[in-house]
Amino acid sequence: MNFDSKDFLKESLNKMVQFGDEEIKPILDVFTLKKTKKKEIIAQEGKIVDSAFFIQNGALRLFFSEKGTEVTGNISTEGEFLSSHESFFSQIPSKYNVESVEDCILYEITTANFLKIASNNPKVFQVAMKILEQRLSKARETIEMLVTLTPQERYERIMKDNPEWINRIPLNYIASYIGISPVSISRIRNRLFSEK
Amino acid sequence: MNFDSKDFLKESLNKMVQFGDEEIKPILDVFTLKKTKKKEIIAQEGKIVDSAFFIQNGALRLFFSEKGTEVTGNISTEGEFLSSHESFFSQIPSKYNVESVEDCILYEITTANFLKIASNNPKVFQVAMKILEQRLSKARETIEMLVTLTPQERYERIMKDNPEWINRIPLNYIASYIGISPVSISRIRNRLFSEK
Repeated sequence: MNFDSKDFLKESLNKMVQFGDEEIKPILDVFTLKKTKKKEIIAQEGKIVDSAFFIQNGALRLFFSEKGTEVTGNISTEGEFLSSHESFFSQIPSKYNVESVEDCILYEITTANFLKIASNNPKVFQVAMKILEQRLSKARETIEMLVTLTPQERYERIMKDNPEWINRIPLNYIASYIGISPVSISRIRNRLFSEK
Repeated sequence: MNFDSKDFLKESLNKMVQFGDEEIKPILDVFTLKKTKKKEIIAQEGKIVDSAFFIQNGALRLFFSEKGTEVTGNISTEGEFLSSHESFFSQIPSKYNVESVEDCILYEITTANFLKIASNNPKVFQVAMKILEQRLSKARETIEMLVTLTPQERYERIMKDNPEWINRIPLNYIASYIGISPVSISRIRNRLFSEK
């Protein structure tokens, strides 16, 4: 795969809202390539986040600190957009940090450029709506999982839905994401592996 | 308060995105008054939901059925918009029911009318984005609460944030909304009341 090409970004945008080739060009133009290292913090809690990221390769997570421990609010991988959305769209201080879970190849768009291209083409707002809608569905699924499933069932669900996470995402990130203590999640994983 | 006036709706829209008086008129025009009775189901799980509701007066909830019990996914009151958003915007079957928790006075907008007014004025997309953004923030707060707080802390938080719910929202709706069994929530409430 040519990681410097915007073909994957273009394809992902077109999946949400159909654009013509000429129409999508100025949109793709405002995205800039950004390469990050594993564990690099690319947006900080308490500051205004004025970039959103399309993940060409790698994984990002949103997290915040609570009583000295980190709580993961979101994990995103290839083909997904991630930002601290409230901060990006409303320019208020972010409640979250954004961290590279792996070395990443990202395409970055600033709030100012987002507003510029959206004022020229309202379909850009529809893309943003689609992303928010997908995030909201995902957040609702997480809530449902938290209120209806046992810790073991949550772990099984998340691993069924995201089998590639097992080798890519540290277990303690997954633990706080699904509301389980690091000790419990290790126990659950060991039990599941010994059953196989 | 004149319940049949669209002043409150107008004010709520203007809080999200500023409109001129002439500009907002065609937007307000597509909202139609709808009065519903307590316990009335106004949108159904499994069907396409093609209306969104602005709550002029009353309370609505989103819920779904899981293993024979109802799980409340959202509770909204005066000044808020509610729909089964994924279904409303993407016209896919809804995962949720929408129910009147009280007798309600609502203003309803259909998906077709939403798309019509948005194609005439892209600021309407910005309103929709704002609503999705607020929903997403609320969903993330719920997730945070579920993974970081004990059942009693969750109940205290929800009552602090929404003190009017105590007289308006049945306790079992609140229970499933914050992932507590009906028995536990009664016990927590009794304990808190006896401490006062």
